[in-house]
Amino acid sequence: MRHLACLLVAAAIAAAAPVQAQDLAPAAAAVRDRALDDATAWKLVESLTTEVGARPVGSPAMMRARDWGLATLTALGFANVHAEAFTTRAWLRGEESAEVVGPWPQKLQILGLGNSAPTPKGGLTAEIIVFRTYQAMLDQPPGALKGKIAVVTQPMPRTQDASSYGPIGVQRRQGPVEAGKRGAVGYLVRSLATDGTRLPHTGTSAAGGIPAAALAPPDAELLERMAARGKPVTVRLVMNSTLVPAAQAWNVVGEIRGAEKPDEVIVVGGHLDSWDPGTGAIDDATGIAITTAAARLAASAGPPKRTLRVVMWGSEEQGGSSEAYLAAHKDEVSRIVVAGESDLGAGRIWRVSVPAGGWAHPEMRAFAATVAPLGVLTPTAPALQGGSDIEGLIEAGAPFVEFSQDADRYFDLHHSADDTLDKVDPRDLAQNVAVWASFLHLVANSDIDFRALKTAANR
Amino acid sequence: MRHLACLLVAAAIAAAAPVQAQDLAPAAAAVRDRALDDATAWKLVESLTTEVGARPVGSPAMMRARDWGLATLTALGFANVHAEAFTTRAWLRGEESAEVVGPWPQKLQILGLGNSAPTPKGGLTAEIIVFRTYQAMLDQPPGALKGKIAVVTQPMPRTQDASSYGPIGVQRRQGPVEAGKRGAVGYLVRSLATDGTRLPHTGTSAAGGIPAAALAPPDAELLERMAARGKPVTVRLVMNSTLVPAAQAWNVVGEIRGAEKPDEVIVVGGHLDSWDPGTGAIDDATGIAITTAAARLAASAGPPKRTLRVVMWGSEEQGGSSEAYLAAHKDEVSRIVVAGESDLGAGRIWRVSVPAGGWAHPEMRAFAATVAPLGVLTPTAPALQGGSDIEGLIEAGAPFVEFSQDADRYFDLHHSADDTLDKVDPRDLAQNVAVWASFLHLVANSDIDFRALKTAANR
Repeated sequence: MRHLACLLVAAAIAAAAPVQAQDLAPAAAAVRDRALDDATAWKLVESLTTEVGARPVGSPAMMRARDWGLATLTALGFANVHAEAFTTRAWLRGEESAEVVGPWPQKLQILGLGNSAPTPKGGLTAEIIVFRTYQAMLDQPPGALKGKIAVVTQPMPRTQDASSYGPIGVQRRQGPVEAGKRGAVGYLVRSLATDGTRLPHTGTSAAGGIPAAALAPPDAELLERMAARGKPVTVRLVMNSTLVPAAQAWNVVGEIRGAEKPDEVIVVGGHLDSWDPGTGAIDDATGIAITTAAARLAASAGPPKRTLRVVMWGSEEQGGSSEAYLAAHKDEVSRIVVAGESDLGAGRIWRVSVPAGGWAHPEMRAFAATVAPLGVLTPTAPALQGGSDIEGLIEAGAPFVEFSQDADRYFDLHHSADDTLDKVDPRDLAQNVAVWASFLHLVANSDIDFRALKTAANR
Repeated sequence: MRHLACLLVAAAIAAAAPVQAQDLAPAAAAVRDRALDDATAWKLVESLTTEVGARPVGSPAMMRARDWGLATLTALGFANVHAEAFTTRAWLRGEESAEVVGPWPQKLQILGLGNSAPTPKGGLTAEIIVFRTYQAMLDQPPGALKGKIAVVTQPMPRTQDASSYGPIGVQRRQGPVEAGKRGAVGYLVRSLATDGTRLPHTGTSAAGGIPAAALAPPDAELLERMAARGKPVTVRLVMNSTLVPAAQAWNVVGEIRGAEKPDEVIVVGGHLDSWDPGTGAIDDATGIAITTAAARLAASAGPPKRTLRVVMWGSEEQGGSSEAYLAAHKDEVSRIVVAGESDLGAGRIWRVSVPAGGWAHPEMRAFAATVAPLGVLTPTAPALQGGSDIEGLIEAGAPFVEFSQDADRYFDLHHSADDTLDKVDPRDLAQNVAVWASFLHLVANSDIDFRALKTAANR
């Protein structure tokens, strides 16, 4: 029955839509090919990483990033360029160090986790207890870790679809709270990293935890080997940090106004803030650059019918952008045609998922045909995750797309000092721009209504 | 004429030596195959990197390394285990930091170079001047860099035979003196690294230079991009260090005494000291492990005729071992059959060079046949470089061998925090042990006289 219903819906759409996929394809292909040759995205990534670099929320660099965003959008000819201010909680790193005190003294490479408590002044020194899996630590009863530094060394598997970040990431996000519940005084966790470079990878953890830091992978393995020798191993941990309860932050916005239906808005972007150890190249100068360049290219053959809005979200890493944006735009949600975020580096897009029923529409069929030569799959399963910064819009009902990028190398670099420009492949970056630009061009010049398509598909 | 002479020499050797290559090959092959299955070398690398870690000369860790060496050789059954003390100059790192102050503030990842002068207390702040090649800096007249921080960003090419380290290395070794001559107050040099990881690579520089540090490759490229923007770029550099003019150091020695000719000595080893940022895994726990394990395996079928001596040299990185060893053993040089050092990580041996004329001898022909299945070339060109720690012996006339390892990945890791156990491939390590063990077995049980062969070959 469901199958028959789908066929009927498709027939109805075909009857209602005089535009055919093949009529739209040449213009979309022209946008795609222009994008593949366009250097705008690369220049933006180069500029943001060179002239601003690391830009954690609550830092002076974030103010420079805001100014960079405003200047960049203005220089590229966007309209209605402005910053939407909000406040959010910001954790700022201070002095940090860790070392094995005995029996085999060695320095350890660490980075404190966002929201980590500071150590007592002068640091803390305690025996470690090493768990090869996060579950093994969770299996400990309350009090079992009393006075110890808990160490979890479970490695993160490499995946194309970033699917290991959620399940393994819990050891970073919840570990400091869970270790504390069991009596630990400190928590060290193997970085959520897919390579073995001696650089720790930071990231947020849940509030309310004990002093907690990420270990570089070789240092996690060193502690495993020391623990395996059967003697008590003592570690000294020094961590300072500052917690700003209401730091200033900004979502920076620019638009290409729609010529026919300016109130119908397509919202895309990346996040402007970054973690502090690197320069925020793949996380997320690339997302900013891809969506900004794509919006401009989508309008390169003339003003679109609908409004294209680029948002450079101001606090993704520690959260806040999404809630702030929804609060400021809740009356507008019903007019958001579709929302999308680019926040997985510059790995090539290998799959695009649109709202349920979307592929039945001629514009979306034209889009699938336009990006297939770029190596993009367009499965019928609807988009599941849109991105942290548009979660608020999604929960409020905005349709969203998911452009899956190849994450194979992403977690080699993510949240580490190695997040730098040289890791970005300009060809892969351009492929991303081409996919986004083709999509934005087709949607902005169409009457496609993802809400109605979804309703029809679910009927 | 030379060709005819060679043939005559070969005929004379064949007549004088009743032993044929094919008679020796089975025993050598047995040693080789035992080595491929032997875990001793891996265990030694694991132990030294876990229980000692970084061990710069002049540090407390170096004393622990000495004790580790003595205990290890004793436990493995070596005879005459002892430490030969000497003093040498030692440069010890202190606090270090660098940052772009303006116009685009960013932190830089640096490591001070050995022998670097400290900055004035509180650091120095100066405008940078960037040179894309070392020669471009040398081309500057005296005074041209007055008051500036000179920055050289020439990258190091990846090579299999490590041949880029000499010519590109001059920018690290001589750069601080040459920049100073031209008036610079500080010197930053792109790390001698073949990858783009955001870790600087340290190493020595000539004494008498200005404050000098290595930049992580992405940071060298960042300064290039900033300089290309045409505005003055200012960097703040803070470096402390301590220079110990006569630090205690030790060459740690163990022997497998020859049963027939104990005074004929084969000297092999690696160096026990390391640079400080990593754990000295590939530089040079592997060399220590390869030669120690190989000597033991060479004697595994029974005591050798000649003495096998393993020396764990105590100050390679900052120099001193070679001179100290020669001074203590100058009367013994004429009885050294051959010397060799393993100091290029655990990359597979792809070529073995012996003293001129060596391949004419049946033992060496058997050796060539034994290691050919391991992918080893045995060209007739004689060995050219034996290793830093045996330079003194070589200059005093000791024959030496050169076991060329694949250096393709070596300079990704060398002298950086990334020099850790996880970067060692156990199979490649075992291949090294097999080649060394085969060689030591054959030479220690032979009457081969490389000096006489060389003389004959040159006749």
